[in-house]
Amino acid sequence: MVPHLTTALTGPINELEQRVLESMPAIERWFRLEWMEHTPPFYTSVDLRNAGFKLAPVSTDLFPGSFNHLTPQMLPLAVQAAMAAIEKICPEARNLLLVPDNATDDPFYMTSVQRLVQVFTQAGLNVRLGSADPAVTGPRALALPDGSELTVEPLLRTRGRLGLKDFDPCTILVNDDLVAGTPAVLENLHEQYLLPPLHAGWTVRRKSRHFQSYEDVAKKFAKLLGMDPWLINPMYATCGEVDFSSPGGLDCVQANVDALLTKVRRKYKEYGINERPFVVVKSDDGHHGAGIITVRDARELPDLQQRCADKAAGVTEVIIQEGVATYERVHEAMAEPVVYMIDRYVVGGFYRVHAERGVDESLSGPGGRFVPLAFADGHQLPRPGDKPGVSAPNRFYMYGVIGRLAMLAASYEMEATDPDAETYD
Amino acid sequence: MVPHLTTALTGPINELEQRVLESMPAIERWFRLEWMEHTPPFYTSVDLRNAGFKLAPVSTDLFPGSFNHLTPQMLPLAVQAAMAAIEKICPEARNLLLVPDNATDDPFYMTSVQRLVQVFTQAGLNVRLGSADPAVTGPRALALPDGSELTVEPLLRTRGRLGLKDFDPCTILVNDDLVAGTPAVLENLHEQYLLPPLHAGWTVRRKSRHFQSYEDVAKKFAKLLGMDPWLINPMYATCGEVDFSSPGGLDCVQANVDALLTKVRRKYKEYGINERPFVVVKSDDGHHGAGIITVRDARELPDLQQRCADKAAGVTEVIIQEGVATYERVHEAMAEPVVYMIDRYVVGGFYRVHAERGVDESLSGPGGRFVPLAFADGHQLPRPGDKPGVSAPNRFYMYGVIGRLAMLAASYEMEATDPDAETYD
Repeated sequence: MVPHLTTALTGPINELEQRVLESMPAIERWFRLEWMEHTPPFYTSVDLRNAGFKLAPVSTDLFPGSFNHLTPQMLPLAVQAAMAAIEKICPEARNLLLVPDNATDDPFYMTSVQRLVQVFTQAGLNVRLGSADPAVTGPRALALPDGSELTVEPLLRTRGRLGLKDFDPCTILVNDDLVAGTPAVLENLHEQYLLPPLHAGWTVRRKSRHFQSYEDVAKKFAKLLGMDPWLINPMYATCGEVDFSSPGGLDCVQANVDALLTKVRRKYKEYGINERPFVVVKSDDGHHGAGIITVRDARELPDLQQRCADKAAGVTEVIIQEGVATYERVHEAMAEPVVYMIDRYVVGGFYRVHAERGVDESLSGPGGRFVPLAFADGHQLPRPGDKPGVSAPNRFYMYGVIGRLAMLAASYEMEATDPDAETYD
Repeated sequence: MVPHLTTALTGPINELEQRVLESMPAIERWFRLEWMEHTPPFYTSVDLRNAGFKLAPVSTDLFPGSFNHLTPQMLPLAVQAAMAAIEKICPEARNLLLVPDNATDDPFYMTSVQRLVQVFTQAGLNVRLGSADPAVTGPRALALPDGSELTVEPLLRTRGRLGLKDFDPCTILVNDDLVAGTPAVLENLHEQYLLPPLHAGWTVRRKSRHFQSYEDVAKKFAKLLGMDPWLINPMYATCGEVDFSSPGGLDCVQANVDALLTKVRRKYKEYGINERPFVVVKSDDGHHGAGIITVRDARELPDLQQRCADKAAGVTEVIIQEGVATYERVHEAMAEPVVYMIDRYVVGGFYRVHAERGVDESLSGPGGRFVPLAFADGHQLPRPGDKPGVSAPNRFYMYGVIGRLAMLAASYEMEATDPDAETYD
């Protein structure tokens, strides 16, 4: 289930949202059944884009940061979910080793780590921080903006186990997206739980593989609700390795942009949507917002090569994806909801906001801000005759559903890409 | 874990509380291990009394009402806990049948039922209400104070199953404490989950049996923390059946009152507590506050018989229990914290408040009020060098721990009194 948070969305409930709200018990049961067969990622954050007629995930982070942008009131939900997660993995555990990424000199990032430490401490674990950074040779105290500090210690590897000095954890929780590669110290740990698994790192993950799984999930879910999966699923295409410097290097990208725009145009016509479609071209590996290019028209293609070469330096694999406009505003700035989950539970969310970006642009990157979503204060009085639980609509519910669909897709994705999985033919 | 709620308690943290707060990870791990061996009750509310030097449960309700006194902000925690409970019992379930008690004409009680309906609807179940009252012969709409309504339908029993017209539930959740007896329609249901089990009803339960289990739990927990179990455990004695009208009928009660007061006096002396001890005499069956008698001195015993005969009419079994004063105040009125749990999780709480009662009297009954506990708003800034998660002390945490100890005791109690349990000698 999904906490009732105050959303920017206050207009009338549209058809898609109405259908999702009405189907709540069936949706929750469907998730229950899916989680009987599939293991949820340990923690997940999902960026959504809401165009009103369409709501879709655009980014699924399996090493989420920014936990500090959840309000303190959401902490108990996170702790409760963390307890459920630990009970399944290591109920007897005393110790949790948290491996942050190497941005330990970033006070904002460390404030998120601090929040994670709080969550797992309150869930009943001794939490210590270990760094794979060779520069960390002894305990290092890191000052936090609130005046407190956290200590990072060097990781100690024995043959089979990873720990710190005098600290042997049952579970190692990684908060580094491994975009720079997988440290050898984390490999071949078979006696302890390493979460998320290494193949959740960006050295292995591909966005297109995630959206392939998401398409499967969206189709199943749309069947449950009797609706067109396109309403929650952004179409995409891939091009394998792209050589930005060669003359015909972008042919595949151009062809796919054109084909995708045609498909989207057809869908818009089908639904009477009076908007100009666009697609985004982004790197298929790595996860950062850098290098996301918005293309609205095949006529823009001639200068695409130059723009790609400028903005997407070093990108070799690309994904071309249907763009979903964001029609939510917080203080007149473009806003994207971000949904946070621990284990199978939605534990909170916030808006990613950017005042200088348009409806069709990425809101990540410099100039972006975060606006916490507070719990909704006064539940509206239920109207007589309304079904219980439905009459005070939880506008955040729909985000929680789509966020969990993306999380379920990540679970499918992790199963499909697991290098240790046994194959039965 | 325990939500951070604003407590009436704002004074300095005493020794007991300090020890509980410092031991949080060890305590949470201990609960995890206990729940691997024991099944938590489906839902539980526990009334506590806080004397500062001593904190103890005084009443453990396995059919809790008053869910409407939890703030709306606690709903997501309740729903998340309900999801966890359902996943274990009936993950494929579509339907939940809720059996309220027969007080369906009490708008306050029905508002609590409405809250339960919301919780389980949002957890993904179709919830309908069934009544064992023979007067309910068809669907009956019940108006709620907020203008909405709930419908109660007659229970339909086939040989093996219980349901409503066109409604076959996997789980039947009873919210009737069965103090008036167990309706035949609820008996011998072996194909469905009936929760709580019938022997959790007051036709079977005895307070003394609960406190016998609580004593075991308190001893184990006190060993973990290296403290005297008396600090969380109220001593008690029983008298079996008492005949209030016979001349020597109260001899056993008088002897136990005297012995218990002596024991408490000794403990107070040991801890240098400068208070006058008292004991309470109450019915061992039934659960209501009526008939709770406070005795401060053996010299009061001569008129005890008259007072018992007046106040505890019909009581045959009595428990004599060490009294725990409540030193918490809300707006200068005596206040008792009440902790709510679903499955193994603390989902909220409130204060039971009574302006006209003394520190040594029951706060239940006419004139009592409820004061919701809000989530603590501004977490204090952590002090530099403080352990994470500890520096902004959650004063509600201690209540959540003692509440869960009483819940664990109820779990032991249900195992010990299960009529269907197989006995291994």
